[in-house]
Amino acid sequence: MLELSVTTFDGVPMVRPGDDLAQLALDAAARRGLRFGDGDILVLAQKIVSKAEGRLVRLDTVEPGAEARELAAATDKDPRLVQLILDESACVMRAKPGVIIVRHRLGHVGANAGIDQSNIAHEGGECALLLPRDPDASAARLHEALRAATGAHVAVLIADSLNRPWRLGTTGGAIGCAGFEVLDDRRGLSDLYGRELKVTMINRADSIAAFATLAMGETTERTPLALVRGFAPDHHPGSAAEIMRPLADDLFQ
Amino acid sequence: MLELSVTTFDGVPMVRPGDDLAQLALDAAARRGLRFGDGDILVLAQKIVSKAEGRLVRLDTVEPGAEARELAAATDKDPRLVQLILDESACVMRAKPGVIIVRHRLGHVGANAGIDQSNIAHEGGECALLLPRDPDASAARLHEALRAATGAHVAVLIADSLNRPWRLGTTGGAIGCAGFEVLDDRRGLSDLYGRELKVTMINRADSIAAFATLAMGETTERTPLALVRGFAPDHHPGSAAEIMRPLADDLFQ
Repeated sequence: MLELSVTTFDGVPMVRPGDDLAQLALDAAARRGLRFGDGDILVLAQKIVSKAEGRLVRLDTVEPGAEARELAAATDKDPRLVQLILDESACVMRAKPGVIIVRHRLGHVGANAGIDQSNIAHEGGECALLLPRDPDASAARLHEALRAATGAHVAVLIADSLNRPWRLGTTGGAIGCAGFEVLDDRRGLSDLYGRELKVTMINRADSIAAFATLAMGETTERTPLALVRGFAPDHHPGSAAEIMRPLADDLFQ
Repeated sequence: MLELSVTTFDGVPMVRPGDDLAQLALDAAARRGLRFGDGDILVLAQKIVSKAEGRLVRLDTVEPGAEARELAAATDKDPRLVQLILDESACVMRAKPGVIIVRHRLGHVGANAGIDQSNIAHEGGECALLLPRDPDASAARLHEALRAATGAHVAVLIADSLNRPWRLGTTGGAIGCAGFEVLDDRRGLSDLYGRELKVTMINRADSIAAFATLAMGETTERTPLALVRGFAPDHHPGSAAEIMRPLADDLFQ
């Protein structure tokens, strides 16, 4: 029996490069009269982490190469944007007009290497926002900063919206984690009748990211932070890198 | 700004064929002093819906055909189980030892057509539990039964754990829905800076199913019901069938 809560924080200022996200989260919680405690999970939208880390790129600074120009022509996209997608990817998996599905250098498979052009200011010309360079490291830094500020073990999850090959509509997924159990591996344990559970591994991080992302909204809500409460505290280090299915086991390359 | 809660219900008896799940949910809520209200979302684990609908099959009643025997040999599985998988599927997408990925007749892509052998009694011999015949219809019936019993508009979501091609660990997904907006389509609307949102469609049902399934647990928790509160009530009819990406747009067949 569980009682979980998810609270989103509003009034968060637009994030600029160099902003201190731990302080921003502490301020947002304080405005709602909340203090972080052991077992709390702070979820941050990828967008504010990328913005704070200066991952905004002006497209007029990008010089597309031959591969990018060719792929851009085949998919009817801006060649400069396609160059950024290629730079951020390990390989292109599928492409058709309007769609480029890649394996991101971090392992995530999805459209456009997670590069987004919505809800950014486009100051001085058209811009694109890349994923954080190392979101697990970003989450770990935030986890430590929150511990230093509060003394509490606050788990951190950086969430981005992911698309799926056979299901319409995005759901949030974890791209950076620190301080909680990401995969709950029940293989080898028994079910209610003593039968061995053969394939039960539960992705806790993606399950939390999905709901928190829905709560935060993905368009004009301006609530890029959520606090998830009610899970038993754990002290796994945790990382989103654990989620990536090994290439050797990928049946859909 | 949102404040959402997810509560799981314990003390739910083991479900038998013909059981009245609406009454079971009302009883479980009453034991916790809760009454269903407008905008509440009741999440049910697929397993209890399948059990109530008599979808348990004794393997010794199944006669595997030639295709099932061949696929069973290639994947090292019980030919009778493979026959059930084939009967429940539109096509086999990938197979290797230990793994059969199919497109279920309902459209869901995943391992073993959602057929499960854990947490069932295996009375009179080894059994397997199939997905409900029409989970959207099951959800709609529960939605109407709850309205008749309470007068409230209670959304219903039947959740099953789904695996994903590139990410380890299962997450809950929606296989039956009634009474809420399943896909939130923001395409054509504007972002914070007035730029058109091009590809923003949010899968609300899967996002809720993921978190509720994590809360309910998938092994020995015996909490197959969850109540999700805090979303604004809506009066979309809703169905999980909406989620299926059309075959013509599937880049990973």
